[in-house]
Amino acid sequence: MKKIITIGRQFGSGGREIGEQLAKKLNYTFYDRNLIILAAEKGGMSHETLNAADERAANPWLYAAMSQTGQTSFNPNISTNDTLFTLQAGIIKDIAKTENAVIVGRCSDYILRNEDVELLNVFIYAPTEARVKRIMERMDVTEQQALQLIKKKDKERKCYYDFYTDKKWASHSSYDLNIDSNRFGIEKAVEIIASAIE
Amino acid sequence: MKKIITIGRQFGSGGREIGEQLAKKLNYTFYDRNLIILAAEKGGMSHETLNAADERAANPWLYAAMSQTGQTSFNPNISTNDTLFTLQAGIIKDIAKTENAVIVGRCSDYILRNEDVELLNVFIYAPTEARVKRIMERMDVTEQQALQLIKKKDKERKCYYDFYTDKKWASHSSYDLNIDSNRFGIEKAVEIIASAIE
Repeated sequence: MKKIITIGRQFGSGGREIGEQLAKKLNYTFYDRNLIILAAEKGGMSHETLNAADERAANPWLYAAMSQTGQTSFNPNISTNDTLFTLQAGIIKDIAKTENAVIVGRCSDYILRNEDVELLNVFIYAPTEARVKRIMERMDVTEQQALQLIKKKDKERKCYYDFYTDKKWASHSSYDLNIDSNRFGIEKAVEIIASAIE
Repeated sequence: MKKIITIGRQFGSGGREIGEQLAKKLNYTFYDRNLIILAAEKGGMSHETLNAADERAANPWLYAAMSQTGQTSFNPNISTNDTLFTLQAGIIKDIAKTENAVIVGRCSDYILRNEDVELLNVFIYAPTEARVKRIMERMDVTEQQALQLIKKKDKERKCYYDFYTDKKWASHSSYDLNIDSNRFGIEKAVEIIASAIE
């Protein structure tokens, strides 16, 4: 049976970097935004179109309006979001059949919940100050802009996760293991997760 | 510098047992309800009186009423709760100066936040079904009684923690590491925490 580690993460917590180093340490494949490229190839769609829909939920208000009026293809964004989710879900299930992997985000924990796979679901968080510092170091933004980015991205992730799963994003019980990356640092967090899967 | 691992836990999650086995594995001292005995000795009070106040918050409504009327010793339970908290806080700080220890509950994470100690704050949780099963196996109670116990004890712990600290009980950001004991089992959970402190 294949081993899959899924990583949910607050924006700026270093969750992606932890996932990447974890995959390297364990010799697992690493999946993140590259899932979009695979989805685009599979669905015959442009990377740009899917990129705009990545980890964003379809608009539930538009959905309700559409179903009431019998419309099914009113807003192109809705179909793109759902198409991307469905394409990625298929790819994620295929991955779980064939290789050990670390998958960041994309509701992969929920998509794989009933699959025949050894699943470890991890969530990475950090205090806001630490995340602001990390974002300012990595992106050319002010403290204020970093704070706005955190708010916006975390809202998008929560909306996406809560829309496509029946769990709650960032709630500890949605995951097996929740780690404060600022307390341990990237390397130690990788070690802790590795010790949990071994 | 001494190492202290504090363990917050949902009722029935096995957090106490994890703490006990962790202390044994690392050769640390283990503190749980035995803190009450130490507190009783220090404060010259009976074990029974302090036992009744263990991990229970003073009643904030009575506090407000008392402060408005200038009363300071209206309800004996209030002074017992606060006395126990203060006695335990002193003992916990003394422990952190002299030995490596695992301390279960009693707001020890908050009490030690500014002390000169290597602190690892862990929270143990588990799905309700798993906790009901564990409680039924260990105490002679029905499923319904186990559910009621979970509700009551978790409310008391939340009330106690939220009253005496400025953090939120069971919220992942109040801890460094949050572990689902049902996903890993007691032994593996102990291993994960040990790998985090080493």
